[in-house]
Amino acid sequence: MARIAVVAGDGIGPEVVGQARKVLDAVLPGIEATGYDLGAARWHRTGEVLPDSVLDELAGHDAILLGAVGDPTVPPGVLERGLLLKLRFAFDQYVNLRPSRLWPGVTGPLAAVKPGEVDLVVVREGTEGLYAGAGGSLHRGTPAEVATEESLNTRHGVERVIRDAFARAARRERRKVTLVHKTNVLTHAGSLWSRAFAEVAAEHPDVTTEYQHVDAAAMFLVTNPSRYDVVVTDNLFGDILTDIAAAVTGGIGLAASGCINPEGRYPSMFEPVHGSAPDIAGKGVADPVAAVLSAALLLDQLGHAEAAARVTAAVAAELAGRTPGAPLRTEEVGDRLAAHAVA
Amino acid sequence: MARIAVVAGDGIGPEVVGQARKVLDAVLPGIEATGYDLGAARWHRTGEVLPDSVLDELAGHDAILLGAVGDPTVPPGVLERGLLLKLRFAFDQYVNLRPSRLWPGVTGPLAAVKPGEVDLVVVREGTEGLYAGAGGSLHRGTPAEVATEESLNTRHGVERVIRDAFARAARRERRKVTLVHKTNVLTHAGSLWSRAFAEVAAEHPDVTTEYQHVDAAAMFLVTNPSRYDVVVTDNLFGDILTDIAAAVTGGIGLAASGCINPEGRYPSMFEPVHGSAPDIAGKGVADPVAAVLSAALLLDQLGHAEAAARVTAAVAAELAGRTPGAPLRTEEVGDRLAAHAVA
Ligand SMILES: CC(C)[C@H](C(=O)O)[C@@H](O)C(=O)O
Ligand SMILES: CC(C)[C@H](C(=O)O)[C@@H](O)C(=O)O
Repeated sequence: MARIAVVAGDGIGPEVVGQARKVLDAVLPGIEATGYDLGAARWHRTGEVLPDSVLDELAGHDAILLGAVGDPTVPPGVLERGLLLKLRFAFDQYVNLRPSRLWPGVTGPLAAVKPGEVDLVVVREGTEGLYAGAGGSLHRGTPAEVATEESLNTRHGVERVIRDAFARAARRERRKVTLVHKTNVLTHAGSLWSRAFAEVAAEHPDVTTEYQHVDAAAMFLVTNPSRYDVVVTDNLFGDILTDIAAAVTGGIGLAASGCINPEGRYPSMFEPVHGSAPDIAGKGVADPVAAVLSAALLLDQLGHAEAAARVTAAVAAELAGRTPGAPLRTEEVGDRLAAHAVA
Repeated sequence: MARIAVVAGDGIGPEVVGQARKVLDAVLPGIEATGYDLGAARWHRTGEVLPDSVLDELAGHDAILLGAVGDPTVPPGVLERGLLLKLRFAFDQYVNLRPSRLWPGVTGPLAAVKPGEVDLVVVREGTEGLYAGAGGSLHRGTPAEVATEESLNTRHGVERVIRDAFARAARRERRKVTLVHKTNVLTHAGSLWSRAFAEVAAEHPDVTTEYQHVDAAAMFLVTNPSRYDVVVTDNLFGDILTDIAAAVTGGIGLAASGCINPEGRYPSMFEPVHGSAPDIAGKGVADPVAAVLSAALLLDQLGHAEAAARVTAAVAAELAGRTPGAPLRTEEVGDRLAAHAVA
């Protein structure tokens, strides 16, 4: 039976993760879940972000389910570098998977796009690029200050995430992969990405391919998001594009994500894209849908595709039945989703 | 009298620049314009992109008006690095100015945003960051390949563009500047930008400030673009954000831009954001509005604020009078704009 680590985190994290666990328990009874206390609260209390001993313990699980970490009083970078990015890098989670669908029942901001028309997934590289932490500064605080940030890209890292994107595309209906980069300016990294992409594409004659510069892709995500199926891109571009994709499909309130080590050598981590939302924390009004969809990604990654599909169908039914603007209760949504997923 | 260099370029470049010149001649008779043959066509013919002798000649002008360069057969990077970026760097055009308005008469893609509600300007840094060309690769074409791209940021370069953004904000009605970066991941450059921003902000107590991560800003440009007034950001973030801003205000077909050396030590360059659109080139159906708006930015930069305002008003009238979807003739639009600007 699957052993998962649960990092409920701060703010609304515990509330939404509670519903995700409820749904998981419903579709996969007997799942073993261990809670870990990490995030802003722990950092305030103890000064610790992610002790090595906890990292070791997490490594012994099949997957990690995370709610949200952070609050406005933690300095920028502390939890990002110390916890979220640390886990991505330590557990070699090189596939950062971010599906976006404009669900029936959800009104997106784009006048011309109707629910059901957008169904794309961004496969964002998760362990390289500008996230490598290769940067520094000289003459800090003086008029002569120079600060650098280096994007590191390896054939190893680029090829494996492109392979993952093609494998996913081959299992989808439209079978199309769009590479997004900025080859006209970032010529060295762009060339590496383009060549690796072309070579992997040659092994997949059944998959359609295209290339777009990141600025053009950002624009087309707004003007014509339904043109995308699978998008593969580097770490920073993926960060930006997935927030645009979330925005055009109803907001990050519904967006799920997975930081995946596809080989399963290390645990993959699943989390809603939204933050800890301190303003509504503890009120029982946070929408748990993104956390529940993240649990569905977790199920899928652990080989429980059928259970994942039932959870996704429950979410689809929940969203289709909502009245726009009507208030919701976190617990009730969780109850409905759990009931629907096993019906 | 102003001496401008005109690089009409490829595709629809000559057509739209023709109208921009028509309008310039109308509002500022006696302007001295010299054409320069640069772009894909010249490169195909001679292999030259931007000979030093031409660069020297361009330096002798007050400003450059550019149409569009490129065609699909030129390898990526040749004209970008060799011409566009070369000019930005050689002429120290550190302010890349990109206004976005949802003009009355124009239907944007966002259901909730009405014409007139968006009026923002992105002040994008133009001479540093990932555009510095500091990158390389090792073991190219082997499984051991590594490719790097380095973002270089200096206090000098960051502070001067932030100063420009505040100066512009102080002249606008809402007087608000949003800094966009990714300080939680790009901690070295992020810290430099944040500190410089805070220091310049302290000199402008009348200007409201805020900070957003680039992923959040990309999202809010889609969900709530009217919240922005002046946005200041780095070179690559600005590239992406301005295309989103263009998309939400009716597409890059209407977007103008200026690459500005504010001190006027070198010529500034003004160009529509759209490309050479080879598919419609020569048909006389390209919309010259973005080129004409770029000419208005040129006038403003050269100190002809009143003439610039007349051109902008002509564009506003033109757009307000259009029937959505109705075909247009490039020449006729230029004639109407020129007539209106001097009426
Ligand atoms: C919190 C931050 C480090 C993170 C990122 O930039 O990857 C977030 O924006 C995300 O997209 O998961
Ligand atoms: C053509 C390219 C070099 C350029 C850029 O990236 O700056 C373009 O996208 C732009 O925004 O002007």
